[in-house]
Amino acid sequence: MPAADDPTALEPWQWPEDVWRPLVEQVRAGRPLARDGWPEGARVAVAISFDSDHETPVLRDNSQTPGTLAAGEYGARVAVPRLLRLLAEYDVPATFFMPAVSALLHPDEVEAYVAAGHELGVHGWIHERNTLLSRDDELELTARSLDTLQRLSGRRPVGIRTPSWDFSPHTLDVLRELGFRYDSSLMADDGPYELLADGSPTGVVEIPVEWIRDDAPYFAMVRYAGLRPYTPPAGVLDIWKREFDGAVEESGLFQLTMHPSLIGHRSRFSILRELLAHIRGTSGVWWATHEQVAAVAAAGLTTTKGATR
Amino acid sequence: MPAADDPTALEPWQWPEDVWRPLVEQVRAGRPLARDGWPEGARVAVAISFDSDHETPVLRDNSQTPGTLAAGEYGARVAVPRLLRLLAEYDVPATFFMPAVSALLHPDEVEAYVAAGHELGVHGWIHERNTLLSRDDELELTARSLDTLQRLSGRRPVGIRTPSWDFSPHTLDVLRELGFRYDSSLMADDGPYELLADGSPTGVVEIPVEWIRDDAPYFAMVRYAGLRPYTPPAGVLDIWKREFDGAVEESGLFQLTMHPSLIGHRSRFSILRELLAHIRGTSGVWWATHEQVAAVAAAGLTTTKGATR
Amino acid sequence: MPAADDPTALEPWQWPEDVWRPLVEQVRAGRPLARDGWPEGARVAVAISFDSDHETPVLRDNSQTPGTLAAGEYGARVAVPRLLRLLAEYDVPATFFMPAVSALLHPDEVEAYVAAGHELGVHGWIHERNTLLSRDDELELTARSLDTLQRLSGRRPVGIRTPSWDFSPHTLDVLRELGFRYDSSLMADDGPYELLADGSPTGVVEIPVEWIRDDAPYFAMVRYAGLRPYTPPAGVLDIWKREFDGAVEESGLFQLTMHPSLIGHRSRFSILRELLAHIRGTSGVWWATHEQVAAVAAAGLTTTKGATR
Amino acid sequence: MPAADDPTALEPWQWPEDVWRPLVEQVRAGRPLARDGWPEGARVAVAISFDSDHETPVLRDNSQTPGTLAAGEYGARVAVPRLLRLLAEYDVPATFFMPAVSALLHPDEVEAYVAAGHELGVHGWIHERNTLLSRDDELELTARSLDTLQRLSGRRPVGIRTPSWDFSPHTLDVLRELGFRYDSSLMADDGPYELLADGSPTGVVEIPVEWIRDDAPYFAMVRYAGLRPYTPPAGVLDIWKREFDGAVEESGLFQLTMHPSLIGHRSRFSILRELLAHIRGTSGVWWATHEQVAAVAAAGLTTTKGATR
Repeated sequence: MPAADDPTALEPWQWPEDVWRPLVEQVRAGRPLARDGWPEGARVAVAISFDSDHETPVLRDNSQTPGTLAAGEYGARVAVPRLLRLLAEYDVPATFFMPAVSALLHPDEVEAYVAAGHELGVHGWIHERNTLLSRDDELELTARSLDTLQRLSGRRPVGIRTPSWDFSPHTLDVLRELGFRYDSSLMADDGPYELLADGSPTGVVEIPVEWIRDDAPYFAMVRYAGLRPYTPPAGVLDIWKREFDGAVEESGLFQLTMHPSLIGHRSRFSILRELLAHIRGTSGVWWATHEQVAAVAAAGLTTTKGATR
Repeated sequence: MPAADDPTALEPWQWPEDVWRPLVEQVRAGRPLARDGWPEGARVAVAISFDSDHETPVLRDNSQTPGTLAAGEYGARVAVPRLLRLLAEYDVPATFFMPAVSALLHPDEVEAYVAAGHELGVHGWIHERNTLLSRDDELELTARSLDTLQRLSGRRPVGIRTPSWDFSPHTLDVLRELGFRYDSSLMADDGPYELLADGSPTGVVEIPVEWIRDDAPYFAMVRYAGLRPYTPPAGVLDIWKREFDGAVEESGLFQLTMHPSLIGHRSRFSILRELLAHIRGTSGVWWATHEQVAAVAAAGLTTTKGATR
Repeated sequence: MPAADDPTALEPWQWPEDVWRPLVEQVRAGRPLARDGWPEGARVAVAISFDSDHETPVLRDNSQTPGTLAAGEYGARVAVPRLLRLLAEYDVPATFFMPAVSALLHPDEVEAYVAAGHELGVHGWIHERNTLLSRDDELELTARSLDTLQRLSGRRPVGIRTPSWDFSPHTLDVLRELGFRYDSSLMADDGPYELLADGSPTGVVEIPVEWIRDDAPYFAMVRYAGLRPYTPPAGVLDIWKREFDGAVEESGLFQLTMHPSLIGHRSRFSILRELLAHIRGTSGVWWATHEQVAAVAAAGLTTTKGATR
Repeated sequence: MPAADDPTALEPWQWPEDVWRPLVEQVRAGRPLARDGWPEGARVAVAISFDSDHETPVLRDNSQTPGTLAAGEYGARVAVPRLLRLLAEYDVPATFFMPAVSALLHPDEVEAYVAAGHELGVHGWIHERNTLLSRDDELELTARSLDTLQRLSGRRPVGIRTPSWDFSPHTLDVLRELGFRYDSSLMADDGPYELLADGSPTGVVEIPVEWIRDDAPYFAMVRYAGLRPYTPPAGVLDIWKREFDGAVEESGLFQLTMHPSLIGHRSRFSILRELLAHIRGTSGVWWATHEQVAAVAAAGLTTTKGATR
């Protein structure tokens, strides 16, 4: 935190402007990107993603028991094959963000992603919480994750989603150093934008996410945290349809984040199928991986003044 | 707390009446106001408000990371322009309560409110919790907020909404000292009323709020507090329609509080549009800012015996 | 807790039977009562109740601020008059359980209950938690509450509902000593039953409650406890209709608990009206106060072998 | 936990592979079983179960008061007879998993299960948490529970469901030592599978469960844990119908877990009746106890290479 006569000793309501303003500007949204239409003359872009965490969040918390691990194992064993069949049926590309330990536990799954033409993105080593790490540790884990996914998939990922969207004050620096083309962890817009570091353009594309378009807030069950799957899937389907319809109305991006071990269960899988059918029934949809969306956005960086990359 | 032989050492069920009664009477609802009909012969008044907090609650908690700040930034970057377009489309006035730090981070937004004819109200300095402050600190922060909004908007606000509706035992005193015409933080009625201080009329108008007519209880996502957006927007729309219909039935006031970073997302924005259409389809609606409602209420103060202002 | 070689030092899974069995039998359900039909040949009994807590739970927690108190004040100021009008419109009797401090703060409300022919029942002194009190304190507070309600209403209550349904190990003893005819705090059945103390009949009638038929689990908003009004009123109406329809099917009792400051808001009041209309549209309904239900149940005590009162 | 140069001193993100991999492989899903169709040419199997906990979770927590115990007593007194009538009406077999202390408190209930032809399974001694026990204590309590249910029911149970699905690192070992044919506590699949211990087949059948197909996440009310019955029963019915319809589509298993004190209330019982009617209206359903499903699965063990039992 920036210091002005040791502001860390102050309450936030006592902070002078030179404390709170730099905090806000550390990482911020810059130019909106990809706002001039989508490839193939489409009027809406749809980017579907899955965070294939499986057993890793439980390991990360060192709370593993056969029961908690089995719930994650379901994602790899049952949900991913089911989801891949659905994506093939609808001929839809997707991006799978996968912690490296999850990839090492399920190398066949990585191959299945690649074989089906989906994108593989970085999602940390063991679903660690970046905001609890030093810059060096975050850099080392991210680099090792990148190398591991490259080795398993045969291709170096170009995108990252921080585990739990836990983007630390060091993350932007780390992902610039490692050469990522895009991040997908922040929430300042509905469509892609360029990230600013302390007010300066970075050339890094952000493909924003949202809890609203994530299955976890509605469907996660965390016993001792009091989280319960209170929202019926039909309610979630209505929310996601409204998000998509709004994207159509604004010729924007509809981005969705799911977790195989949550959405892959039969009662939830059925709403994903209904959602894809709803989107399929709309004309002018460009289905894309996050990488493809980032490429369209990056084109805006090079054709607009002020691009720095 | 009033003392009777050191009652602070007692459990509440041991308190004598001269402890609990003054506690209840410190700030209380007095005369109902604005109950004799609305301007233009309308049979219902509709007062819509937005608390434009954006990044400030995260700063207030000193829990800022790029991720948590970005979720607030969405409110300023995407939601407010979208909401202003909707208000313009429906030709509806609104009141925006804005923490001063939020206004300093987004001065163009203040100008946009003013240019569109909306009201700007005080909402603390950095969304501080008043009940944790001394009287002097609350007074100083509120005065500074008032001055800041006046400087940025060109007009001195006449109303206040305490951050989080966290009305402290000192708040009534502070807002009388600073000359506010109305407060909008308490919940003792559906329609405006006069505030009493220790049983005496103050001439200050209260425009009551309610969690029911606030988007946050349904839509807020606070990761480590276990809050999740469990209620589908269609359910919230049904609640707000019932609140409005009840106001029509009683020729009362329908007051609504929203937050751009919550209601401004596409899936929720759609229900706000549906709500406005529902209200628009009702005859005899007087759309008003909180200031305008307070003015009608204040007229009752001067024409009724016992008015003190 | 009963001791067998100091079982308090044991974990529950180590307890011998002579520890766990007496714990279960301390207070338990005895004979089912009022199962042979209802007065006037009705096929279902409907007993509606309101816990008129208003400001008292906030005082009980010593967490009073103008804001938290105002939310309770709404119950007395706005909700009770609205509810009394509805009950009059439908010509329905109800039972109001009221903490003595709430009655002392709102003596006119007590008079309005009596004038309209409703029942007034004991609900503690300041909504204290009985399980945190000694037997002497619980007895003294309950006796004082009884005297206070008698003084304010002109009639000695015959029934009690423990605050928060927090029936302590001493409560049965206390209410027998004070001569209560019935309690309405426990949940072992849908219809009335006789309470057993350590396996012996007591002659005290229980009119059971349930969280399902309580408005608080769905509608309470407790900021720092993470409770939110997530369930839309239309969902609650469906639950309560199903409970009532089940009671009709079994010729049983439909008992309902509400709180004026929760159910009295417009969006919830509308479902109560719909529920009453639904019940009104059913033939063979006996609307009764809790006291009247208890009287029918008590008749069973005297005509059946083993009655002890 | 396996140690590699004292990995317990490390953070999980620092663990070497020889720490995290054995943790995951301790207990894991092996061969899928019962995937080649169901008896009687059925295209879907339906296995309904109830955990008849009644008073035991409250005793287990040593949090018993007359109020908390009465809510559990409802399960035995009202819900079980109601559920047995429904099962008889639909001629549906079920499996009741019952803690031994619950069985000792309600021996007539055990007899009623047996008389109606339902299965009785082990569910711990007093609903203890296995993950807090030593291996010896878990073994001793499970053995004693098995003996107790055998003595009360006249037949030795062949299946176990760990209390709260709290399957410890010792559980698989314990249930192999006690000769259980199947467990029903884990979640790695929708259909039966063989359990692996450290990568080796065990011959033990797992009949997996899921929070989604459990009434507790939606309906439990735990006051101080903040759990509330927020999900309307109609929403739960929709979820369970989607789970069943998905099972039909895949010729799989629809397994359901309920608790008498939760599902047995009128408003919830009505959705169980609707669900049974929905299933009854589907052709090709094989209704079975968990034991019968496990027998079909075990047949696969003996006819497939690699079976070890």
